[in-house]
Amino acid sequence: MIKKIEHLGIAVKNIEESNALFAQLLGTAPYKSETVEREGVITSFFQVGESKIELLQATHSDSPIAKYLEKSKEGIHHIALDVDNIEFEIARLKAAGFVLLSDEPKPGADGKKIVFLHPTSTNGVLVELCQDRE
Amino acid sequence: MIKKIEHLGIAVKNIEESNALFAQLLGTAPYKSETVEREGVITSFFQVGESKIELLQATHSDSPIAKYLEKSKEGIHHIALDVDNIEFEIARLKAAGFVLLSDEPKPGADGKKIVFLHPTSTNGVLVELCQDRE
Repeated sequence: MIKKIEHLGIAVKNIEESNALFAQLLGTAPYKSETVEREGVITSFFQVGESKIELLQATHSDSPIAKYLEKSKEGIHHIALDVDNIEFEIARLKAAGFVLLSDEPKPGADGKKIVFLHPTSTNGVLVELCQDRE
Repeated sequence: MIKKIEHLGIAVKNIEESNALFAQLLGTAPYKSETVEREGVITSFFQVGESKIELLQATHSDSPIAKYLEKSKEGIHHIALDVDNIEFEIARLKAAGFVLLSDEPKPGADGKKIVFLHPTSTNGVLVELCQDRE
């Protein structure tokens, strides 16, 4: 089951400047910053209701976020949906014809296991499924 | 105060095809469809936790969504934040240097009054503020 929008990921060039900008926009400071070396990103998180806004800055030029910003402008990069059983959703969506970037969930930021759906199968929207690791 | 992510707006070319696709992705059917002639859009809404996903298809070639799809691919078009006092937030954000597309809230879809912030002042993210009309 899809429970909620877990977070929206926003690609930014300078996370310190963007932290200040989003703190002013949202009226709240980021509650956490986390570097995920495997993904080549520095992240920061803002709570907005039951969801989060995650800012993403690349740590090196091979990072997926760096490659994204070579082709696209800063802006909304992906939407993450919180699910109660990620293995079940992977099987359900594969059977329905969606293209998943991996067959198994991988460890992600914020204590989650995650998988991405390829945007060509989701109307151009990069969709992440995520579930809290036990 | 920013209360929650009210909805995510996704620009699509063919709302009937996208309704079927998002129903499968989200595991739930759209609960509402609404045409907003003034904005030149057909919309449909999916509930995801406390937030909604709003699909947007242009009704004519002068529609903002048609113009968006001339320049950009289908995908996430805007994020709408639910606020408790839209006039207060407009004044607060203008004073902080954000660029608003109008000084006064306007009637929007789904029984809301709304205002947009220009994406050049918000890291490339088109942000809508919205509040339920009394």
